[in-house]
Amino acid sequence: MSTKATTTLNDVNMEAVAGLAGKIQEAPDVADTKWLAQVKWNGGFRSEAKIRDFSPLSSDEPPALGGTDNGPNPVEQVLAALGNCLAVGYAANATVAGIKINDLTIDLEGDLDLHTFLGLNEGNAGYSNISVKVNIDSNATPEQLEALHSKVTNSSPVGHTLSRAVPLNIELS
Amino acid sequence: MSTKATTTLNDVNMEAVAGLAGKIQEAPDVADTKWLAQVKWNGGFRSEAKIRDFSPLSSDEPPALGGTDNGPNPVEQVLAALGNCLAVGYAANATVAGIKINDLTIDLEGDLDLHTFLGLNEGNAGYSNISVKVNIDSNATPEQLEALHSKVTNSSPVGHTLSRAVPLNIELS
Repeated sequence: MSTKATTTLNDVNMEAVAGLAGKIQEAPDVADTKWLAQVKWNGGFRSEAKIRDFSPLSSDEPPALGGTDNGPNPVEQVLAALGNCLAVGYAANATVAGIKINDLTIDLEGDLDLHTFLGLNEGNAGYSNISVKVNIDSNATPEQLEALHSKVTNSSPVGHTLSRAVPLNIELS
Repeated sequence: MSTKATTTLNDVNMEAVAGLAGKIQEAPDVADTKWLAQVKWNGGFRSEAKIRDFSPLSSDEPPALGGTDNGPNPVEQVLAALGNCLAVGYAANATVAGIKINDLTIDLEGDLDLHTFLGLNEGNAGYSNISVKVNIDSNATPEQLEALHSKVTNSSPVGHTLSRAVPLNIELS
């Protein structure tokens, strides 16, 4: 019965996660995953991203940047990806620790200097820093929350993708 | 008349972009932009990201990772953001160079080792590398395309955000 309780805590399917971890311990190559997306330009600064069979995600720039505001812009999408990834991390690690999450919201903001994007100088076109505030309502003690927070930030795929330099290979085909 | 032709090439509003660049040359602080997102956890590995007044973007993990497949997962969203950002870069820089884009699609893939995310070891939980193929049909010569490609990759906000280490400040509030 305790297995069932663990499975449904936070509505997280820990059996699936544990099953995958078990498979990887038997065959480490199972951990080598590849993820895909395809982007199609739709004129102006509008584009859409296709991921598996999901509806395409619309992207555009706001009018001040020459766009038509048909969707969030790419740098906003990066913040969304980070927040969504942290949410998975909190849900997974809280469940493992037996912590019930009542509510979780994550506020993200990033600072970006437009000079390089606009061709006004060379340098860093990307975020100079990203700040995240995690608002969690749970049955955990402050100490448990700090331990949870540490686990999440030390194992976040998007967090690490952003906080480390990722080799990009961008080619004209 | 040539101004009008430039404005409508690729349906890109270069007047707005040039206007912003002009404002920044007069007042460099105008280039200091801040971007926001808020993520709300919806149980399990489901969450949604709210950006300005756009409809929330749904995020989830596939069943093999313990999710219910209610949307693209966060690492896929990172690839989408990069592709969308490159599309803006190609559209903007092609327009400045007088290149007409007939068609543009961008295929992205990233490699990620799940060991760290699953708590099986410490290390890099994020992408070890990201590969991008840009398929562009235009009236440009190969030399013009190479120059365009170089400009885009040297000035891409999401490209630089990924290829450089961004300071992340993630706090429990």
